[in-house]
Amino acid sequence: MSDFSVITNALKKFRDERDWEQFHNSKDLAIALSIEANELLEQFLWKDPTAANKDRLKEELADVFAYAFLLADKLDLDVEKIVLDKIKKNGEKYPVDKAKGTAKKYNEL
Amino acid sequence: MSDFSVITNALKKFRDERDWEQFHNSKDLAIALSIEANELLEQFLWKDPTAANKDRLKEELADVFAYAFLLADKLDLDVEKIVLDKIKKNGEKYPVDKAKGTAKKYNEL
Amino acid sequence: MSDFSVITNALKKFRDERDWEQFHNSKDLAIALSIEANELLEQFLWKDPTAANKDRLKEELADVFAYAFLLADKLDLDVEKIVLDKIKKNGEKYPVDKAKGTAKKYNEL
Amino acid sequence: MSDFSVITNALKKFRDERDWEQFHNSKDLAIALSIEANELLEQFLWKDPTAANKDRLKEELADVFAYAFLLADKLDLDVEKIVLDKIKKNGEKYPVDKAKGTAKKYNEL
Repeated sequence: MSDFSVITNALKKFRDERDWEQFHNSKDLAIALSIEANELLEQFLWKDPTAANKDRLKEELADVFAYAFLLADKLDLDVEKIVLDKIKKNGEKYPVDKAKGTAKKYNEL
Repeated sequence: MSDFSVITNALKKFRDERDWEQFHNSKDLAIALSIEANELLEQFLWKDPTAANKDRLKEELADVFAYAFLLADKLDLDVEKIVLDKIKKNGEKYPVDKAKGTAKKYNEL
Repeated sequence: MSDFSVITNALKKFRDERDWEQFHNSKDLAIALSIEANELLEQFLWKDPTAANKDRLKEELADVFAYAFLLADKLDLDVEKIVLDKIKKNGEKYPVDKAKGTAKKYNEL
Repeated sequence: MSDFSVITNALKKFRDERDWEQFHNSKDLAIALSIEANELLEQFLWKDPTAANKDRLKEELADVFAYAFLLADKLDLDVEKIVLDKIKKNGEKYPVDKAKGTAKKYNEL
């Protein structure tokens, strides 16, 4: 069983023991993911990057992954495939010779 | 090699070919993650959950995973471990007998 | 007519000419506000605070205010009153003698 | 004195009594605004729009306005002007005859 299946199965077991699938439509899962991403971001507010609390970061990043995996499962998407496909697509938007060493967006390159 | 390593290695190769690690401090990675989570959410704006465009969702969710994996790598965190640890911790905040069938937050149970 | 009424009336006129009130339930307005806040934030991504494009900031902040005012109107809230009330409440959470010169959250003071 | 000045002055007085301006660079203010927008959004998570708690919405929306006004002040922007300018610009992106009754984005009209 892949690493992804281990995580997704643990998340679905947790969800189903609490009968929570009824709340987990894809729109609310996306809202939950956005909220968790911002709770993670809050750990850095008013601070230098290195001053954030590592234990809090760990937990907030775990919550982000949890909703990302639940949403991937809900949409029946293969995480490894979609990420590798996106890297390929981004390679076309950000060719090495134009994008090297600059943080500009692709439409400004 | 685990699924996670495959993805993380592909993301770091893409990043390093473009000499982008200089921009990737943990705070800006967390900002990027929040932005991508909201680009995903935007696919559902003014719509029923099922009316979102599947191809767009696929790409936006891939971006969310990309920054989440890059941030986990930057913070030297083991994704499988932090998610399974968080599920255990959430089990204490949301005991089955209290949380079953309700979407209330743990501090309202 | 107050400044707030001028803005709110202009926003509602724009909305009603397009027959958009049907989409503007409070949940989707809150989603839109979150999306606009992150489009504003994106202007600072990978950058020093002063390096953001001023014209883009102006437009994105305007969008944030637009949805904030539309949501206040939808919820029948008086913007001046709720902000002044919140400042008073925050004064109790962050008493000057404890909060002065520190960016800590109230639960860490 | 305009409504906006009343609010902005009260916010700056609160900030300066606590010597917080040192933390308020425009990038962190934008992060704070994004975080508050998502705390507002969280009130709607897993719920119908009408099921959110009105008192919580009031406070979270007040926080959104607070950071939006502080950021406008930091960037030296006139809130009424930028919103009215943006409405005009949006009128060109969303002409009434094309946009009426549809929630499509301008690039899909």
